Amino acid sequence: MTLASSLPAVEPLDQTMRAELQHLIDTKTKPPGSLGRLEALALQMALIQRTTHPGIERPVMIVFAADHGIAAQGVSPYPQAVTAQMVLNFLAGGAAINAFSGVAGVTLEVVNAGVATPLPVAAHLIDIPIARGTRNFAHEPAMTRDEALRAMQAGAARVQHHAALGTTVIGFGEMGIANTSAAACLMSRLCTLPIDACVGRGTGLDDAGLAKKRDVLAAALEHHTNATEPLDVLATFGGFEIAMMAGAYIAAAQARMTILVDGFIATAALLVALALAPAVRDYCVFAHASNETGHRLMLDHLHAEPLLALDLRLGEGTGAALAVPLLRAAAAFINEMASFESAGVANRDAS
Amino acid sequence: MTLASSLPAVEPLDQTMRAELQHLIDTKTKPPGSLGRLEALALQMALIQRTTHPGIERPVMIVFAADHGIAAQGVSPYPQAVTAQMVLNFLAGGAAINAFSGVAGVTLEVVNAGVATPLPVAAHLIDIPIARGTRNFAHEPAMTRDEALRAMQAGAARVQHHAALGTTVIGFGEMGIANTSAAACLMSRLCTLPIDACVGRGTGLDDAGLAKKRDVLAAALEHHTNATEPLDVLATFGGFEIAMMAGAYIAAAQARMTILVDGFIATAALLVALALAPAVRDYCVFAHASNETGHRLMLDHLHAEPLLALDLRLGEGTGAALAVPLLRAAAAFINEMASFESAGVANRDAS
Repeated sequence: MTLASSLPAVEPLDQTMRAELQHLIDTKTKPPGSLGRLEALALQMALIQRTTHPGIERPVMIVFAADHGIAAQGVSPYPQAVTAQMVLNFLAGGAAINAFSGVAGVTLEVVNAGVATPLPVAAHLIDIPIARGTRNFAHEPAMTRDEALRAMQAGAARVQHHAALGTTVIGFGEMGIANTSAAACLMSRLCTLPIDACVGRGTGLDDAGLAKKRDVLAAALEHHTNATEPLDVLATFGGFEIAMMAGAYIAAAQARMTILVDGFIATAALLVALALAPAVRDYCVFAHASNETGHRLMLDHLHAEPLLALDLRLGEGTGAALAVPLLRAAAAFINEMASFESAGVANRDAS
Repeated sequence: MTLASSLPAVEPLDQTMRAELQHLIDTKTKPPGSLGRLEALALQMALIQRTTHPGIERPVMIVFAADHGIAAQGVSPYPQAVTAQMVLNFLAGGAAINAFSGVAGVTLEVVNAGVATPLPVAAHLIDIPIARGTRNFAHEPAMTRDEALRAMQAGAARVQHHAALGTTVIGFGEMGIANTSAAACLMSRLCTLPIDACVGRGTGLDDAGLAKKRDVLAAALEHHTNATEPLDVLATFGGFEIAMMAGAYIAAAQARMTILVDGFIATAALLVALALAPAVRDYCVFAHASNETGHRLMLDHLHAEPLLALDLRLGEGTGAALAVPLLRAAAAFINEMASFESAGVANRDAS
């Protein structure tokens, strides 16, 4: 099975309607450009959907959860069992992403991509683990290329499921103790940046913990200098949730969805997707700038300007969910606002 | 009639529950502080409402519209008739604030505070004009002290109406051709800043128009050097919509509402309110940073950090309406999230 044959192809954004859409936006009853970034957002969504009436239909947030062998190196202040405990918390409706998805009118799906702790059978859990956690990349690659590819395909399949149900906007979140370590290594290798620029405090390491995390990850990168091809980088340092997200991004772009990109780990997964399918970039809306060190640098690397900057550093897709109302506002203005002509409002420099 | 006797008194925020609320926020299933500014927002709303379960009940946006005599000096690229035309557009549902209020689930009220062009009788218009536009402050004060005070009381009365109906969150927007000129003069005088730092392109002046606006406003400030007391400053340079907003802020704080502060003109009106009742500041959430020159400087003057920065420069309350979902998210997390204990999630440094 090859990569090209197993993942959907992504077309660059069709620009045919750009001039028509820009005219539509400019003749709404407001000074030209006065809705700022919402105008660009409306234009992007309309181009993605190839319509003058873009819609936020059946928005979905998929949270992928998995464990990381690197956790054994003590790179997180939380025990590995928290990944499974938080999956149960998601299913019970008690986590931040539940609250934010509810407020934003977003359907939340929780995927076991590869949690280490056994999970009870639960009606609403999409239980498709690749394995019970990755291997410890301090010593060996986190997964095989085949595992990485299967995870990507599984993530893509979840998106295709929602595409068939009519979803036009999607975001991806994650849960996985130690996954900022995986993300920092992916970032370092894929962006060719020194590991120190990519490592942050994660869920809240102190100075000593941060120094240790830096040392562990620097040594791991040194140990795996041969991993440079995107799928190898993913297999070596990634997690099953990250790999599923990478595949999910590609499938979402292929299905011409507007993709809300969350924080540090979600953007690291996007780096993998973009390395494999650069046109995915056209479908992305960068929801927020995380407070995790390295996320701003990742966004700069992608020439991405996030919509929100609220000092979040939680993951779970929380930043992406918070941006959904901004998409709704952008769609509402292009769909509902009157034009100067239709409203009988004098345009500028009339007298 | 004196000012003190005619406007509601505002108490500083009661801090009694702060420690209890901070503990509640810190024991939710997330690393402490990881919801960033939403944590501060939840705390503020809860303190304002004196409850551990703050609610966004019946949120309201009041758009005050009025005309400005200074428009005769050619300080806007749009004709004065646009103020009335936009009022009709608001009533017909065709403006940006209609679209954004709808998306945010906000009740929109439109107030004729003093539009120059006669308006047709309309069922949903709150028609309480002080006069048909202000006087031209290039030559004479825009209004009398009595008119300013009556406008403030009228604005306060609208808020008290909504307080009686149970509203806990409110925002104020405005429409008034040339009102960035009024706001720039209020800012210059109340913040003791040079007029050049306060003047911007408004709805889209070109370089020549901007230079002319600067000259007109510099001369007007020079003409009215005696206006330094807040109510005099308001009467001299303000508009009826700005005066009603100033009164509305004070009444909203008195009614212990969370107040969403919009852009350049809304913040100028807040400067007046704060000069008269400094404790209003405790009830304010700064919704966004406008692209209008001077707004950032105003926010700096108030040590205010806006929630959003989306390059808007429209007014109408659009930025405030866009921030409502962030308040909903803040309330949702404090109301709905499980604690580490209740969810059976191990806290940090457990093993």
